[in-house]
Amino acid sequence: MNNCSFRLPHRIRFSECDPAGIVFYPKYFEMFNSLLEAWIDSLLDGGFAAYILDHRFGLPSVKLDVEFLFVSRMGDDVLLDLQVVKVGRSSLTLALSCIGNDDIVRVRATQIVVATSLETHRSIPVPKALRDALNVNGVFSEKE
Amino acid sequence: MNNCSFRLPHRIRFSECDPAGIVFYPKYFEMFNSLLEAWIDSLLDGGFAAYILDHRFGLPSVKLDVEFLFVSRMGDDVLLDLQVVKVGRSSLTLALSCIGNDDIVRVRATQIVVATSLETHRSIPVPKALRDALNVNGVFSEKE
Amino acid sequence: MNNCSFRLPHRIRFSECDPAGIVFYPKYFEMFNSLLEAWIDSLLDGGFAAYILDHRFGLPSVKLDVEFLFVSRMGDDVLLDLQVVKVGRSSLTLALSCIGNDDIVRVRATQIVVATSLETHRSIPVPKALRDALNVNGVFSEKE
Amino acid sequence: MNNCSFRLPHRIRFSECDPAGIVFYPKYFEMFNSLLEAWIDSLLDGGFAAYILDHRFGLPSVKLDVEFLFVSRMGDDVLLDLQVVKVGRSSLTLALSCIGNDDIVRVRATQIVVATSLETHRSIPVPKALRDALNVNGVFSEKE
Repeated sequence: MNNCSFRLPHRIRFSECDPAGIVFYPKYFEMFNSLLEAWIDSLLDGGFAAYILDHRFGLPSVKLDVEFLFVSRMGDDVLLDLQVVKVGRSSLTLALSCIGNDDIVRVRATQIVVATSLETHRSIPVPKALRDALNVNGVFSEKE
Repeated sequence: MNNCSFRLPHRIRFSECDPAGIVFYPKYFEMFNSLLEAWIDSLLDGGFAAYILDHRFGLPSVKLDVEFLFVSRMGDDVLLDLQVVKVGRSSLTLALSCIGNDDIVRVRATQIVVATSLETHRSIPVPKALRDALNVNGVFSEKE
Repeated sequence: MNNCSFRLPHRIRFSECDPAGIVFYPKYFEMFNSLLEAWIDSLLDGGFAAYILDHRFGLPSVKLDVEFLFVSRMGDDVLLDLQVVKVGRSSLTLALSCIGNDDIVRVRATQIVVATSLETHRSIPVPKALRDALNVNGVFSEKE
Repeated sequence: MNNCSFRLPHRIRFSECDPAGIVFYPKYFEMFNSLLEAWIDSLLDGGFAAYILDHRFGLPSVKLDVEFLFVSRMGDDVLLDLQVVKVGRSSLTLALSCIGNDDIVRVRATQIVVATSLETHRSIPVPKALRDALNVNGVFSEKE
């Protein structure tokens, strides 16, 4: 695994499930956001907290395409998987998935997140420290 | 407004915003899910609660495509808007949006939800009462 | 109803319930927090958003005592009720409840919240505009 | 550590914090509920999921007393701590805390949870498997 690939095991919690007994779909995005945070924590000094609080950068979603293929139930052990698909000038394109312990993908998402200034909420170039952490591992970084 | 169009005013709450001061994106899906519930409440006797708890039907997401165009901040008054795009055999295709009080769309989503049995979590035909409520208003209902 | 009493009708949502089919208890605190926000919105120009974002005041919990007396289910119509019990130098003591439409109290809480500066997260005197809004209605305001 | 004591390390996540930059207090209860689940997972075959889904037992809160002593910020590493204070006929009294990595307690709660049937939502005796797991370690179990 290089810096452009990250995995986190997760057990589906009671609090993530609904009266239908399965994961309430917005909870997948909380899982994916925690995965993104843990990944940034693994890349940057001070982690995602310093990125947000000290540097006053943001990393909001601008696009999200999701397929829900199979349900997850309370107590299921899953793998949350993040792959960097593309690094643009301001944006990262991520492939996210939630995979059962039978290796079957349950939820598959493509998300574009954009580096922003928290003062203006406008896009900025991907901060150098983050770009460097990704370049170390030879991610293809194309012009947007 | 017919049965295939539904709007709900909403004030962005503190609990929906993150340390970046804007809506935490998974919260939009909680808003859209509450909108879907309120819409079903307006269509069916006993509402969404009876649909789930008495009839043991589900209505999970199978596909979701989202664009986040502008940020929302705590205290903003927005309109949550639902339009039925297509009624299939088992599925409904919905156009969802979050619109600022300047009429500018902030978040735009297309969601496909599928009627299921909560016993099997497999798809079933859209329940008659729901289909009837929609047909009354002449929604185009195509073969899948 | 004076400024020291506030009520909000609420329908229990799917997203607030758990696989046991009843409200997941942390969701009551999201309901009570939205109630607090709506109450402050009714008292102050600019509402809770201006209190937090413009004036950079906080209003965090320091104490919370709760009794859960009866369960709430998805679709239930409840009343969320807030009463000011005491106004201190920096703190407000609130009596919060969730009441079924049979007038039976389901959840009863006493919460102490404290006015803070968001820069220091230390307590400050209850801001004048808020104190004035409460005093208008003759709430007993004792020395702490 | 015996069966009546359980700890889980946790990093405070972006999604747990509010526009004031600190943990949104209802999120502490989601943390404590995940702690309870992980503890039950460690005690029972099939864990909390089997307790709920297979045996159709519940474990709702009936009482909760909380003191919020110090704020937690995004990125903070904390310990979530659970101690069994008392085992009653139907209830468990738990002492829960969130402890900073400076050993200072930030949030301290006493929670009473009650074993219930999910069919009736009425209390039942603490299920034998759970009582046995606790008795092994000599927890004082008094008559209620």
